[in-house]
Amino acid sequence: MTFISSRMLSNTAEDTDINILERKQTMLLRNSLTISHELVSRVVLPGDSVVDATMGNGNDTLFLAGLVGGTGKVYAFDIQEQALEKTGQKVKNAGVQDRVALIRDGHQNMDQYVPKGIKAVMFNLGYLPGGDHKLGTRAETTIAAIEKALALLCREGIVMIVIYYGGDSGFGEKEAVMAYFKTLDAKNYSVLVHEFVNQANCPPIAVCIEKYID
Amino acid sequence: MTFISSRMLSNTAEDTDINILERKQTMLLRNSLTISHELVSRVVLPGDSVVDATMGNGNDTLFLAGLVGGTGKVYAFDIQEQALEKTGQKVKNAGVQDRVALIRDGHQNMDQYVPKGIKAVMFNLGYLPGGDHKLGTRAETTIAAIEKALALLCREGIVMIVIYYGGDSGFGEKEAVMAYFKTLDAKNYSVLVHEFVNQANCPPIAVCIEKYID
Repeated sequence: MTFISSRMLSNTAEDTDINILERKQTMLLRNSLTISHELVSRVVLPGDSVVDATMGNGNDTLFLAGLVGGTGKVYAFDIQEQALEKTGQKVKNAGVQDRVALIRDGHQNMDQYVPKGIKAVMFNLGYLPGGDHKLGTRAETTIAAIEKALALLCREGIVMIVIYYGGDSGFGEKEAVMAYFKTLDAKNYSVLVHEFVNQANCPPIAVCIEKYID
Repeated sequence: MTFISSRMLSNTAEDTDINILERKQTMLLRNSLTISHELVSRVVLPGDSVVDATMGNGNDTLFLAGLVGGTGKVYAFDIQEQALEKTGQKVKNAGVQDRVALIRDGHQNMDQYVPKGIKAVMFNLGYLPGGDHKLGTRAETTIAAIEKALALLCREGIVMIVIYYGGDSGFGEKEAVMAYFKTLDAKNYSVLVHEFVNQANCPPIAVCIEKYID
C-alpha cells in the first residue's frame, strides 16, 4: 500500500512537492496523509466500526477496511456516483465488500445511516481529483458533518481531517474549519493540528480530534 | 519516567491543563512534551551524539542520556549555575555522568563544543521554572542557536523545539521563531508544527525540523 494520495498527484503545482515527499519516504516527517493513516492505525482495532466521510477514489475506504477486518464495518459517503463506482470496484477487487457500506448521500447526513459508538471518522477536505470542482466539500456541510461525526464517536475515538486548500479550492473552507476547531470544549475534546510550515503550494494540514466523553 | 514536565507544573494557570492532561495519559493525543519525546525516541539510537540546548532542570538531559546509552554522548547547555547543579546531581544519581557533558555557556555557542554529525538537538523555549525570568531564552540567541544546531545535524537528524509562551514570557520569541521556520528551504529541511488549538492558557507548541542534506 502506498501512502501518497492520488489527490496529491492531480496537478503540476503539487508534483514538485511529491518529488520531495518521495525522497523522504524513509524519514521521520512525511506528509499529512501518512500522519493521518498513522494516527488512525493507532486507534482502530479489528471489529471496530468507522466512517470514511469523503469516499473520493476510495483509498481511505480501503485503508479502513483493512484495519477493521472481517468483523468490522466501514461506512463510506460521497454524493458523486463516480466515487461510488470507483470505490465499489476497488473494494470488490480487494474482496472486502462485505464489511463496507457505500452510501450516496452528503456526509452531513451520516447520522441517518451510522450507529453510535464509531471509533474513527476520516475526512479529506477539498475536491475529488479528476472530478467536478464545484462538487468539492464546502465549509457549511463539512462543519455540520464534523459535528455529526463527533456525536457518533465513542470515548477515545477520533475524527481525522486532512485539509487540502489553496489553488482552485481557495482558503474559505480551511479558515472556517480552523475557526470551528477552536470552539471545541477542551474538557471534552483535544484538537491537534499538524502543519508543514516551510513548504510552498499550501501543503495539506492534518487535524486530529480526540473525544474524551461518552 | 514521567512525561509531564516540571515546567508545566510551575504555575496555577497551567495546573488546570495538567489535570486534563493526566486524564489523557492513556489516550492518543497527549501534550507537546510527549510529542517531543516520541519523535526524538524514533531517531536517536545507542551510540549517537545529541544536544540538550536548554538544560533547565535536566529532564531532557536525562531522557537523552537514556537514549544514547553508554557509548553515546549528550552535550547540555545552560547559562545558569543553578541548572548545572540540579542537572549534575540528577545525572550522577542516574549513574550516567560519563556520557554527559554539562556546559555553562549560551546555546548559540554550541558549535564551539559540539562536533558535527549530531542526531538530535532539543530546545525548550521559555524560562527555567523557579528561575530568573529575565534569564529565559530570547528570540535573537534562540534563532542563532537553532541555526548552529541545524548546521551540526547529520542527514536525517532532527531539531526538536517545545515553545512555552504567553504569560510572563509573552509572545515575542514564539512569533520570531515561527517566522524563522518558514524561511527554511523545503529542499533541505521539513518543519512540522504540532499545535493544540482548542486549549486555554497558550499550551506549548512542539516543532520538529528534519534535515535532508549532509
